[in-house]
Amino acid sequence: MGRKEFDLDVLKPHIPSNYEVAQALEEILGVLFVSIKTDEIDQKTTSVFITIIGTEELSLDSIKEKLENMNCALHSVDRVQIDKRTS
Amino acid sequence: MGRKEFDLDVLKPHIPSNYEVAQALEEILGVLFVSIKTDEIDQKTTSVFITIIGTEELSLDSIKEKLENMNCALHSVDRVQIDKRTS
Amino acid sequence: MGRKEFDLDVLKPHIPSNYEVAQALEEILGVLFVSIKTDEIDQKTTSVFITIIGTEELSLDSIKEKLENMNCALHSVDRVQIDKRTS
Amino acid sequence: MGRKEFDLDVLKPHIPSNYEVAQALEEILGVLFVSIKTDEIDQKTTSVFITIIGTEELSLDSIKEKLENMNCALHSVDRVQIDKRTS
Amino acid sequence: MGRKEFDLDVLKPHIPSNYEVAQALEEILGVLFVSIKTDEIDQKTTSVFITIIGTEELSLDSIKEKLENMNCALHSVDRVQIDKRTS
Amino acid sequence: MGRKEFDLDVLKPHIPSNYEVAQALEEILGVLFVSIKTDEIDQKTTSVFITIIGTEELSLDSIKEKLENMNCALHSVDRVQIDKRTS
Amino acid sequence: MGRKEFDLDVLKPHIPSNYEVAQALEEILGVLFVSIKTDEIDQKTTSVFITIIGTEELSLDSIKEKLENMNCALHSVDRVQIDKRTS
Repeated sequence: MGRKEFDLDVLKPHIPSNYEVAQALEEILGVLFVSIKTDEIDQKTTSVFITIIGTEELSLDSIKEKLENMNCALHSVDRVQIDKRTS
Repeated sequence: MGRKEFDLDVLKPHIPSNYEVAQALEEILGVLFVSIKTDEIDQKTTSVFITIIGTEELSLDSIKEKLENMNCALHSVDRVQIDKRTS
Repeated sequence: MGRKEFDLDVLKPHIPSNYEVAQALEEILGVLFVSIKTDEIDQKTTSVFITIIGTEELSLDSIKEKLENMNCALHSVDRVQIDKRTS
Repeated sequence: MGRKEFDLDVLKPHIPSNYEVAQALEEILGVLFVSIKTDEIDQKTTSVFITIIGTEELSLDSIKEKLENMNCALHSVDRVQIDKRTS
Repeated sequence: MGRKEFDLDVLKPHIPSNYEVAQALEEILGVLFVSIKTDEIDQKTTSVFITIIGTEELSLDSIKEKLENMNCALHSVDRVQIDKRTS
Repeated sequence: MGRKEFDLDVLKPHIPSNYEVAQALEEILGVLFVSIKTDEIDQKTTSVFITIIGTEELSLDSIKEKLENMNCALHSVDRVQIDKRTS
Repeated sequence: MGRKEFDLDVLKPHIPSNYEVAQALEEILGVLFVSIKTDEIDQKTTSVFITIIGTEELSLDSIKEKLENMNCALHSVDRVQIDKRTS
């Protein structure tokens, strides 16, 4: 069973918190792992690095949609990885 | 069974000591691992980096509450990680 | 069964996205793994580093053809690796 | 069975030697591992970094007491780690 | 069964490509692994670092001969390794 | 069965050689491993870093005695490690 | 069965080549592994770093003798390691 990985550069408001964003992303179909690291905190926004690992069922569109629902802007997709090898 | 990890930047008074904070955090439901490293020592406060690993039962709210009870201020949550893969 | 690996330096238009390129490359005969990292984003183009791992059936020509079909220019092949050892 | 780890910054007289301090610390209830590295040697004192790993039975108080008995001053506790996972 | 490894500094014309050189080297008796990394690209030549791993049957002479047949100049042998331990 | 490790900073005459010192240290009761690295070579002396790993039977006194018998001066004990965990 | 390791700093003429030196050293009683890396190439000589791993039967004298027979000068023995632990 394959794996997909995404490194995302995201601009978010202070609320929802990193933890709330992680919990929301965790619920997406196919998600196995979510990591959110704070990069810079400005007056109104926080830029964060998000890594998401999932099964083949995971789609980038579902991630984007979830982020937009939380008023988070997907600034760039820094890394995309698709691994078809079973592990 | 999943794992949650938090990297916390915390400002604490000199008392309770790092060890006492670690012992208090260890008692929270779901906690498996606590590490506290001293970052800077000022006249009245110590800033520390705290890493906590726990099961799915661990909640950030219970960590915050425990820290506040010890007069420790959670300055920021630098990293949140949720891993649903069994290991 | 052997493995082939390629590190490619590629110049692509903003569309298709990194994810769409990864999905297209994944479909090539013999491909096991695709990773695309953004290097630099300019006004009209994005330069990316692509790593592809595949079986002995994977050919560089099929990669080149697929990239050209997406208006991506293969700037250079930075690393070629052929491993005949079973693993 | 859990593990506790401490990184200690200690100021000691030249005598007892690092080896004698290590042997004394090794005798504390619950101690599994002791490492002592010399940081700086001054005219009358040596500052050393001490790492101690132990079982749940290990207490910081017993370490402090042992160090004081050898005229060593516990300058700071740089890291405290409590790991409840069996290994 | 032993292993031989060579790190080679090679100056090659732009054609044959890195991939064609790798495919030619792969055919040498005893070769198990070939990696070619581009170091510098000049107007008429490319300098590359080549790593070759092989069995005891692999000889440096057969590598040199193959390189010369492709108009590649073996500039230097930066590392030679012979490992007689079975692995 | 426990392990002891020592990192020693030693000043030695050019003769005996590093290899002769290693062979002498290897004969001490409890020694399992000896490594000697040259740090600086002066006109009459060589300063070396010596790492010795041994069983619980190994004593620092027996190491000191052996070094003195070879006209080597134990300048400092940079690290002492006692590991009681079986491995 | 124990292991011996030597890191040698050697000055050699351009001929014999690194590969020929490696092949000669490989024939010494007890040798399991030889690695030769070029450090600097001068007009008449090449300075190389040689690592040799062998069984307890390996002696430094046999290495020195072999090097001298090839007009190579053993400049220094940078590291000597004797490991009596079976692995």
